[in-house]
Amino acid sequence: MQMSNRISGFQCSPIRRLVPYSRDAVEKGIHVVHLNIGQPDIKTPKEALEAIHSYDKDIIEYGISEGEVSLRRGLVRYYAKYGIKVSQDDIMITTGGSEAIQFVFMTLCDPFDEFIIPEPYYTNVATFANIAMVTLRPVTSSSDDNFALPSIQEFEKRINKKTMGIMLCSPNNPTGHVYTQEELRGLLELCRKYDIFLVVDEVYREFCYDGKSFTSILSFPEYQDRVICIDSFSKRFSMCGARVGAIVTHNRDVLESALKLAQARLCPPAVEQVAAAAALNAPDEYVEDVREEYEHRRNVMISRMQRIPGVRCSLPKGAFYFVVDLPVDDAEKFAIFMLRDFSYEGCTTMIAPAEGFYVTPGLGKQQARIAYVLNEKELLMGAECLERGLKVYRREVMGIRD
Amino acid sequence: MQMSNRISGFQCSPIRRLVPYSRDAVEKGIHVVHLNIGQPDIKTPKEALEAIHSYDKDIIEYGISEGEVSLRRGLVRYYAKYGIKVSQDDIMITTGGSEAIQFVFMTLCDPFDEFIIPEPYYTNVATFANIAMVTLRPVTSSSDDNFALPSIQEFEKRINKKTMGIMLCSPNNPTGHVYTQEELRGLLELCRKYDIFLVVDEVYREFCYDGKSFTSILSFPEYQDRVICIDSFSKRFSMCGARVGAIVTHNRDVLESALKLAQARLCPPAVEQVAAAAALNAPDEYVEDVREEYEHRRNVMISRMQRIPGVRCSLPKGAFYFVVDLPVDDAEKFAIFMLRDFSYEGCTTMIAPAEGFYVTPGLGKQQARIAYVLNEKELLMGAECLERGLKVYRREVMGIRD
Repeated sequence: MQMSNRISGFQCSPIRRLVPYSRDAVEKGIHVVHLNIGQPDIKTPKEALEAIHSYDKDIIEYGISEGEVSLRRGLVRYYAKYGIKVSQDDIMITTGGSEAIQFVFMTLCDPFDEFIIPEPYYTNVATFANIAMVTLRPVTSSSDDNFALPSIQEFEKRINKKTMGIMLCSPNNPTGHVYTQEELRGLLELCRKYDIFLVVDEVYREFCYDGKSFTSILSFPEYQDRVICIDSFSKRFSMCGARVGAIVTHNRDVLESALKLAQARLCPPAVEQVAAAAALNAPDEYVEDVREEYEHRRNVMISRMQRIPGVRCSLPKGAFYFVVDLPVDDAEKFAIFMLRDFSYEGCTTMIAPAEGFYVTPGLGKQQARIAYVLNEKELLMGAECLERGLKVYRREVMGIRD
Repeated sequence: MQMSNRISGFQCSPIRRLVPYSRDAVEKGIHVVHLNIGQPDIKTPKEALEAIHSYDKDIIEYGISEGEVSLRRGLVRYYAKYGIKVSQDDIMITTGGSEAIQFVFMTLCDPFDEFIIPEPYYTNVATFANIAMVTLRPVTSSSDDNFALPSIQEFEKRINKKTMGIMLCSPNNPTGHVYTQEELRGLLELCRKYDIFLVVDEVYREFCYDGKSFTSILSFPEYQDRVICIDSFSKRFSMCGARVGAIVTHNRDVLESALKLAQARLCPPAVEQVAAAAALNAPDEYVEDVREEYEHRRNVMISRMQRIPGVRCSLPKGAFYFVVDLPVDDAEKFAIFMLRDFSYEGCTTMIAPAEGFYVTPGLGKQQARIAYVLNEKELLMGAECLERGLKVYRREVMGIRD
């Protein structure tokens, strides 16, 4: 029995190939420090957990396809804190940010239409584009200038009749770059010129560091018809498993069309929408404390990583990832080596090889994404293993005498 | 700004066009009896609700993409009660049965591949097929023989090189038909002959009436490689809003391929998986009591409906819907009339016009789907309104003197 040709072409999660090695390491009694995933160890707000504990319905009924009104109203107030004016009718709740991206592709694009995206990028977008048969046209950002936005000309060069929009993630997963107001305005002007959409995934909105403020794509009223914001509760409130996200746009045609998809899948998860609505009532200090904690972890991790010979990384401005250049021939081979052949004081480190974060074949082969969502002690142990593992790998596998 | 051509072609929910009329009726103070939707008024098992109340994690973390192990183990035990032998590795948890159907289409079909489906059918399948660019080839079942399975020859006639499988729903939404062992075996033989899949949505498995037992598609080991079962907790445990479903198959290639889709969307909802696992611990009497209640409601509703002049419906064998022939020119016009222009003792009835449940244009124009998920009193009031409304509609709108 044959599977479809298309599913064969879909990528496996770039981390997935490593999972058996990680499992084997754990079975050997090795503690694996997971620098490969963005699963924070920070507690979900107690408001959200309490809302779950006091869930008062006796039937978990179908909800509204576009999401519970109380949750959408809560988001209206949440955005207002950022000076962003939206109404509940500008918001559709989705089953995670993942579903939001899928709805956007399906709503804006016909098969073989194109979206321009800076790479490295959030790799699951590739699968969502594949499902919708949308071609991703990459614009490569470089570690040489800390993954800043490539020039507007680079974007413009890639626009053709099939281009329906540009997709960003800001603060960026995996690079940590935060797009400036000027960068966004430049892209918006370009989008206006060619009458295309700008879609921005802002799920890390709160996690901007060094006292810098964040510019939301929703804060440009003069372009609001061509702006779509992807949002999610996962990272902000450390509730990744709750699968509650949103599409936010002033363009009612987009939401009207996406509603057809939303209705077919009936509704987002009911209990977790209650938890999400309650999370919005967490005091501002919750997110502020989390932000401070991540900023601290970033500082600790970057300065430690920069002390590893041959490793190159610079200070990310937001989110909780960065992309690091490693002095290896192949980051995936090295990642497997770390899990299969290396340990230090009973520990090793799992990293995410960056190749899967690029559309362009061959790029990212010597890079990895590092997530700094664990506590300081774990991070430092992870880095220590990396440093020692690199030394052994370069000597024994690559045959280099440093 | 243009939306995609494809999204314009996707159908709105056939019920959705009626929603503004229903809202207006409610605003006028009219009580609307919802015979149009399958939202039961039966309580979710207390085991599931208690599991929510005692959710003991302090971080709602990402779960496993293929679903929590405890939940899959629970399902293994659940199926064993039906004499069905599956292992946890034969099960992928999905975000509702909806996602399961989408994963199956995407995994088995390339664009323009085909699936054969008896109509009337569960209408959201149309949107899932559209997303995957799969063509649905209908085989029409008829109210004349209570929507029994059309002959195997009718299915065979529609098989061509692009046919990847046949999709059933048993017990059936919207007709209430339950496929017999012989019907299923005949289809399985056909599937073997042409090397295609048989996909059966069994989310109403427990709801078979008149002492008849249910034959699961999973109980044919000799065909197990080409069998995929779609399942869901929504109806069985009256937890429709929980969005927990499953793909169950012995064909590991299917699950391996679907895993690419599952990983991209990260995981199913975490809290509700805990609730679903607990629901499986509800005593057998829970489902048994629910079944008895629905059987009672069915009997009440069918015998009442059959007394309405000109209305034709026969006893459905399972699920909690039936399709009724109405003595009207256009069931949708009549449905709007009931909401906009009619009330009786402050009540009216909302029905689901059946046209949207057919692939073939023009069919079902004088039919509606009736859900009997409400309590007896509501059902009888709904039927009473229908009888009186029909009389007025035929006289005043159709100009018929009965």
